[in-house]
Amino acid sequence: MITALAGGVGAARFLTGLVKLVDEKNVTIIVNTGDDIELHGLHISPDIDTIAYTLAGIVDEEKGWGIKGDTFHCLTALGKLGQETWFALGDKDLAMHVFRTNLLKKGCKLSEVTAEATRLLGLNVAILPMTDDRFETRIVTKRGEIHFQEYLVKRQARDAVYGVKFLGADTAEPAVGVIDAIMNTTKVVVCPSNPIVSIGTILALKGVRDALKKTNADKVAVSPIVAGAPIKGPADKLLWGLRLEVSAYAVAELYADFIDTFIIDTADLAQKGEIEKLGIKVRVANTIMRTLEDKVHLAKIVLGS
Amino acid sequence: MITALAGGVGAARFLTGLVKLVDEKNVTIIVNTGDDIELHGLHISPDIDTIAYTLAGIVDEEKGWGIKGDTFHCLTALGKLGQETWFALGDKDLAMHVFRTNLLKKGCKLSEVTAEATRLLGLNVAILPMTDDRFETRIVTKRGEIHFQEYLVKRQARDAVYGVKFLGADTAEPAVGVIDAIMNTTKVVVCPSNPIVSIGTILALKGVRDALKKTNADKVAVSPIVAGAPIKGPADKLLWGLRLEVSAYAVAELYADFIDTFIIDTADLAQKGEIEKLGIKVRVANTIMRTLEDKVHLAKIVLGS
Repeated sequence: MITALAGGVGAARFLTGLVKLVDEKNVTIIVNTGDDIELHGLHISPDIDTIAYTLAGIVDEEKGWGIKGDTFHCLTALGKLGQETWFALGDKDLAMHVFRTNLLKKGCKLSEVTAEATRLLGLNVAILPMTDDRFETRIVTKRGEIHFQEYLVKRQARDAVYGVKFLGADTAEPAVGVIDAIMNTTKVVVCPSNPIVSIGTILALKGVRDALKKTNADKVAVSPIVAGAPIKGPADKLLWGLRLEVSAYAVAELYADFIDTFIIDTADLAQKGEIEKLGIKVRVANTIMRTLEDKVHLAKIVLGS
Repeated sequence: MITALAGGVGAARFLTGLVKLVDEKNVTIIVNTGDDIELHGLHISPDIDTIAYTLAGIVDEEKGWGIKGDTFHCLTALGKLGQETWFALGDKDLAMHVFRTNLLKKGCKLSEVTAEATRLLGLNVAILPMTDDRFETRIVTKRGEIHFQEYLVKRQARDAVYGVKFLGADTAEPAVGVIDAIMNTTKVVVCPSNPIVSIGTILALKGVRDALKKTNADKVAVSPIVAGAPIKGPADKLLWGLRLEVSAYAVAELYADFIDTFIIDTADLAQKGEIEKLGIKVRVANTIMRTLEDKVHLAKIVLGS
């Protein structure tokens, strides 16, 4: 049994390799929902969809998110109706948001909707939103606090980051199954996702960090930082904003209280000794996943650690 | 000033001709909302959209509804998620439903949303939903009561009709402006729409029939029945179901208490005398609107009556 903590694109790529080696039925993925946003009255869960679309083989592989070959006719028409179009919503992709919003409106929990969507996409993994409650990642900028998607997508991560806030962190409960999936598993994998706004959100949920410390599972994390830069996304800007170093070491420090093993890229070999001083085992591997072979290879390292 | 009572396709075609002769700013269209339906959590107002799309020149002219050249990628994807797809929702069309649902959720009234949508489509006519309240046309069949769209679209009008019910008719109020548009105008036109489920719904609203009787405006109706059959739609089946004759005369009887003039097709010339006995002036014209010229010609007859 494997439980993964996941953000979006990086995690999805890693998990593609993992499910080549492990039966999907034995994989539970706890996914960040701090990026979730309501746009046009629709509930959008970007990381859940990226993970699901990727594992279902329908993701736009070039972008890493959205559905391949999608069109944007509805979004264009929304633009003509004076609505904001900075968040790309494809026509096929829109079906998921309409489906989700409709079920949420009918009183279903996000976790229930996600389980149903996962099944309908033909997947056998368990995809768990980290929480069914409101939890919103906000970025503090010179211009004020803005939603993470507004920071990342609308403003293209160009604002200096003064801080990161998690609205709802005090009150949101982990979704049913989250703590259980951490406690009753043999391996916990922290995917190569943004340590602040993807993994950091999950860790900020009540009881999650404690469960990670208490579980008897073996706990492995893959560094999302290679040679001083994130593989994808704005992790560097967020780390800087929080006055943290942009390095595999800095990420290891953030996870040091609960992980057993940290996997760093060969490019960061020089940091091995320093990370080991945090009391963590270190494995060095190629963590850049360009091909399916790269993904499977990295998953093998993780499973073997 | 002209106030029109309208259903969907037939009314939209007629109004296309009317606005060639009259400044849009002087036209108010009171539109049936008994067909409105919530599907996939989206509020769909078929008649309002048909009128608006037609006047905006973006309607699929062959079908008479929807947006020309639209695609159905979202609907197909909703089908893959196990959702019903019997109601055709195009990708561009969907933008209107998402826009409307979002504003309704934010507390706007349907009439406010419609005014805004009309403006955004570049129209200068006033399109008024007949009511902002719940009002639902249900068809009584052997299998029980079903929503009008289920009867018409899902089951292709194949059920024998035992009756027609208007849910909400006792409580729904005419939208702000509806009674005023009837009382303070020089001409009221009853468009060639279904007398039961399009015009009949508007007439069933509190105060509408009284206003039509009291107004000093000249009141003209165009028969939607030509040579014993509706030009479009299931009016014949509904009339039969209500044990009414399928004829221009039968429609004239339904409107006899408030109209001054009834326009019938040349094919129904033989009914002229009988209709006049109801105390109504009768004009005979070509009411089949194939070309824009046909539409303008019919509008001229209406304006001249």
